[in-house]
Amino acid sequence: MTIRVGILGAGRIGRIHAENVLQTSCAQLVSICDPLLDAAWINNLDIPLATTSENDFFSLNLDAIIIASPTTEHYRHSMRAIESEAHVFCEKPVDKTVAAHQEIRTRLRSFKRKFQVGFNRRYDKDFSTIARASERGNVGKPYLVRITSRDPGLPSYDYLATSGGMFLDMTIHDFDMARFIMKSPVTEVYARGCALVDEQLMSLNDIDTAVITLKFANGAFGVIDNSRQAVYGYDQRVELFGSLGSVTNDHHYPTSVIATNAAGCQQEPMLNFFLERYQQSYREELQAFFASIIRNTHVHPTIDDALLALELAMAAQESLQTNQPVKVTIS
Amino acid sequence: MTIRVGILGAGRIGRIHAENVLQTSCAQLVSICDPLLDAAWINNLDIPLATTSENDFFSLNLDAIIIASPTTEHYRHSMRAIESEAHVFCEKPVDKTVAAHQEIRTRLRSFKRKFQVGFNRRYDKDFSTIARASERGNVGKPYLVRITSRDPGLPSYDYLATSGGMFLDMTIHDFDMARFIMKSPVTEVYARGCALVDEQLMSLNDIDTAVITLKFANGAFGVIDNSRQAVYGYDQRVELFGSLGSVTNDHHYPTSVIATNAAGCQQEPMLNFFLERYQQSYREELQAFFASIIRNTHVHPTIDDALLALELAMAAQESLQTNQPVKVTIS
Amino acid sequence: MTIRVGILGAGRIGRIHAENVLQTSCAQLVSICDPLLDAAWINNLDIPLATTSENDFFSLNLDAIIIASPTTEHYRHSMRAIESEAHVFCEKPVDKTVAAHQEIRTRLRSFKRKFQVGFNRRYDKDFSTIARASERGNVGKPYLVRITSRDPGLPSYDYLATSGGMFLDMTIHDFDMARFIMKSPVTEVYARGCALVDEQLMSLNDIDTAVITLKFANGAFGVIDNSRQAVYGYDQRVELFGSLGSVTNDHHYPTSVIATNAAGCQQEPMLNFFLERYQQSYREELQAFFASIIRNTHVHPTIDDALLALELAMAAQESLQTNQPVKVTIS
Amino acid sequence: MTIRVGILGAGRIGRIHAENVLQTSCAQLVSICDPLLDAAWINNLDIPLATTSENDFFSLNLDAIIIASPTTEHYRHSMRAIESEAHVFCEKPVDKTVAAHQEIRTRLRSFKRKFQVGFNRRYDKDFSTIARASERGNVGKPYLVRITSRDPGLPSYDYLATSGGMFLDMTIHDFDMARFIMKSPVTEVYARGCALVDEQLMSLNDIDTAVITLKFANGAFGVIDNSRQAVYGYDQRVELFGSLGSVTNDHHYPTSVIATNAAGCQQEPMLNFFLERYQQSYREELQAFFASIIRNTHVHPTIDDALLALELAMAAQESLQTNQPVKVTIS
Repeated sequence: MTIRVGILGAGRIGRIHAENVLQTSCAQLVSICDPLLDAAWINNLDIPLATTSENDFFSLNLDAIIIASPTTEHYRHSMRAIESEAHVFCEKPVDKTVAAHQEIRTRLRSFKRKFQVGFNRRYDKDFSTIARASERGNVGKPYLVRITSRDPGLPSYDYLATSGGMFLDMTIHDFDMARFIMKSPVTEVYARGCALVDEQLMSLNDIDTAVITLKFANGAFGVIDNSRQAVYGYDQRVELFGSLGSVTNDHHYPTSVIATNAAGCQQEPMLNFFLERYQQSYREELQAFFASIIRNTHVHPTIDDALLALELAMAAQESLQTNQPVKVTIS
Repeated sequence: MTIRVGILGAGRIGRIHAENVLQTSCAQLVSICDPLLDAAWINNLDIPLATTSENDFFSLNLDAIIIASPTTEHYRHSMRAIESEAHVFCEKPVDKTVAAHQEIRTRLRSFKRKFQVGFNRRYDKDFSTIARASERGNVGKPYLVRITSRDPGLPSYDYLATSGGMFLDMTIHDFDMARFIMKSPVTEVYARGCALVDEQLMSLNDIDTAVITLKFANGAFGVIDNSRQAVYGYDQRVELFGSLGSVTNDHHYPTSVIATNAAGCQQEPMLNFFLERYQQSYREELQAFFASIIRNTHVHPTIDDALLALELAMAAQESLQTNQPVKVTIS
Repeated sequence: MTIRVGILGAGRIGRIHAENVLQTSCAQLVSICDPLLDAAWINNLDIPLATTSENDFFSLNLDAIIIASPTTEHYRHSMRAIESEAHVFCEKPVDKTVAAHQEIRTRLRSFKRKFQVGFNRRYDKDFSTIARASERGNVGKPYLVRITSRDPGLPSYDYLATSGGMFLDMTIHDFDMARFIMKSPVTEVYARGCALVDEQLMSLNDIDTAVITLKFANGAFGVIDNSRQAVYGYDQRVELFGSLGSVTNDHHYPTSVIATNAAGCQQEPMLNFFLERYQQSYREELQAFFASIIRNTHVHPTIDDALLALELAMAAQESLQTNQPVKVTIS
Repeated sequence: MTIRVGILGAGRIGRIHAENVLQTSCAQLVSICDPLLDAAWINNLDIPLATTSENDFFSLNLDAIIIASPTTEHYRHSMRAIESEAHVFCEKPVDKTVAAHQEIRTRLRSFKRKFQVGFNRRYDKDFSTIARASERGNVGKPYLVRITSRDPGLPSYDYLATSGGMFLDMTIHDFDMARFIMKSPVTEVYARGCALVDEQLMSLNDIDTAVITLKFANGAFGVIDNSRQAVYGYDQRVELFGSLGSVTNDHHYPTSVIATNAAGCQQEPMLNFFLERYQQSYREELQAFFASIIRNTHVHPTIDDALLALELAMAAQESLQTNQPVKVTIS
């Protein structure tokens, strides 16, 4: 079986998906659709139908559609892709509103195909190993999950203006990771944040530094620390700690080389950002998506996972504004 | 000059101080006083006057007195040692009340001698190196200090019953460390905690697991995570993160040996508890105390440091009970 | 420009090259030729002409030919590929004889195309970083290059019977690496080896464990230690040490995850063998080959590099038999 | 029981022993004897009899004598100490001649006391852990012991002139270590060395860089690489590799602190030289000596260990001159 795949959106993330589909033997990249196609890039690839027309795209009767368009289009594209009876892979965040998530969720009840959400970090080998250790009870009764998630530098003001704020844009990954690792619902969120990197973010009503405390239904705690600017590179660390011990990961470097001289030991900077750091996870999330289509198994993360991450981001937003812990209803 | 030293208290910590004084060339251990002296231990050492009588002890006209008696005696012994015109080194916590700290502080205004408090971790090479990096601005504008502080196992219920609770007994070190590293006063504390290791602690009105968020006057954040039971050993890590990068320390192991076989790589457990992990710092805090006496320089940590750590512990206690962030007045 | 590529040989290494060509935008995999083609594997790929006929293959007028056939065919395939005026990439070892290397070298004098040899490790990021440090003089005057190269397990007796012995089959990579890192010719070799892993290798006149000392023209030393069986995985380490310091690399692991419990710290086994460990280098050596074709720049490693590595392997063989250091003439 | 101890020699190493004796509860430092006593140093210590007279020293009827005089005096002092019926601890090398070792060995046959040699590295926690792993068969059948031993800088020409050459002065520790780890006699030595750090050493008939291959009776190999000048600090690494895996140690650093910024990760230089790196081993070798006196157990390393290390050093010297492997008779 070869899965006939189309991609909506040919920006940075759409291209990653395109290259990964092209390297997958069970999938064929039939079409890519973007209102502003980059001819130079497209010509290098062997894609039968590159188009600027959504209607042409949806008329292809594709087996699977990957939604990598701007966030504002995700909901509409998701509904249309579902309508076309294709399996759907939708980039995160699915939408900035709870309502859109709920509508998709309702619509999916009668949907026979797969709908997977692009929280790619679940497919990172480090984090999936920690999650598996959690499932197997390797750390015993869990006490704490600690997540450090720091970007290498501030995005542009333009990007920030429509991003929905740090919690919805960036921390949403960490909220999903916290649930993925802890295997228990979050019941309370307390968020503290500030614009320390660039005070001008205050005028955008945004922050760049945050510390978030989570309380889980199983009694355990969570801590997330975020920054928009770690000048040393993309800092992505998770620790799960419990009654039998802990499991942690460490930074990823381009090489394992260490130089030692009279000044001490030096290692080159860690991988700079998500394209390098999470390369393997982007490949594997699509492989998992295709495998679930072929074997008809469950996908993850689901629309429910997306909704729950969104609710945590919104609770954090509320906590930030009120400086109060916010209860989260387990939906 | 040889400093004539006496020690009040010959328990676990008193003995450490005794051995460190014995190995210091500028100090002579003249006396040790404890109502219940262990003859076997004392006989091995060469101490001119080992006594059970406080009056005899204070009649010796000592140059310096180290107070390592039970916490409940610290205040009384401090006042008496000050009265005797000796330089004073007092173990932490100086007292469980703000009032006692304030009285000592007031008394010290007219005191010409030194009064140093036993927050030994300030003299740990790892943490003093991080503090020096902070002072020198190596990480630029500070964004976050992150402290992990986990004991290897629960103390006895007897110990816990009189300990004053985890924040006063254990986290107080971390509150001092947060201030020591950040070089800025704490303005707000939010504490979340629970008895996850041993639910019976609830009946003692105590906890064994906590996550504490700090806000500093300079805008930066702090996070402390505590546990009374890390089965893998004594986990003492600090990270300072700022606009130019980060500085962290790592675990300490008995050796650097790694065994590698078909099952993977193994390193033996880290150092188990504070006596092993902080051995060097106990030696150096006394050396600093003696050096400040000889050179007449300032000591640290001071009674003010002790009071501020206590206030943070009490704020954390209040926050734990109310589940609200608590403002801290910079005194 | 798209380079029309054909591959001779569809065994383990031929397939790796096939997949890497398929993922390269400037190259098109036109044909693959093997007397025993695996239909299941071929059908999954999109290769215009998969053939068992060498004549059909050579009639395609290919731009570039990758020789991944058995070693015994390398020489004949090289000469035929050169005849066809294609750029040639030939797997290591080019041949087991000096004569064949010399004939190819002579033939290449009048050859306008590229001829690259598959010492892939030169394209490993760790080792190319160390080689660059060497070139830039980062370690100052070089004193020593130390190479540890251990396979995870013994190959089959069938493989060993035709392999040419450990020095020609396995250490030849390390001889090339020593030259690549040290940037100076080897003038003397002393080799000590034995069958410690499996004594039966003695009857095959082969060894499985060796220590080799090298002397370089620049005065520096080299040490290679080899084993056919490191049960913990594929151990590939290089250290360059000199007057200004040292540069080393370390093992590669599937993840950066560390589990810590009462028994100590555990990391999973390192990457098991060359397909995993050198994946990136196989990709990059072909990219370098294609780039040199497009830009008409020099390739490396050359046939001279191959010849020099072979001469070192033969010197080691002689030293092993005589237990005497063997001088190497710088050709 | 308190052991009455005297020390012959108050140079760098004699002082270390003095301080370690002073900190040992079962031993009393009764006397120190040196023709040129440093009054300032002696006055700080509490030693009953500091003397420049050997006769006075030997008239004290000491329980144990530590010989830390110049190497040229070791033999004479050893014989005189044995005569005095004291337990003897003699610094390495015991002597530069085989004859002196043999005479002492003969004399010891009728000696009821202990005679321990100061190969302190056997008491280093890293190396004793690796040796224990070897004894317990943790690595299975041993294939290779690999020793890296590099000093931070060249000693003075004066020191070098009387040192006996690098193999006798420096590598002798590594020869002992190789035997200590491998638990099998060395049967052959091949040594290659040169003056690369400072060519002037040639005129002293000495070298500063060496690579030595060892063959053991159990079939395994050994490699030692030495340098007189590792500008980055004191590099002391051992690896034991065998059929079940490997055991290695790593560098020792003053702290565990890592600084990370845009330029990468930095760790401060490793411990600079033997006084810092082997501090713990100097303490423990004396504790072992005293414990063996009190419990009447065997000491190690013995005079036989010293003799065997010397024979290996002399074999290496011969191999260096002839550029031939040299057989070692197992005595």
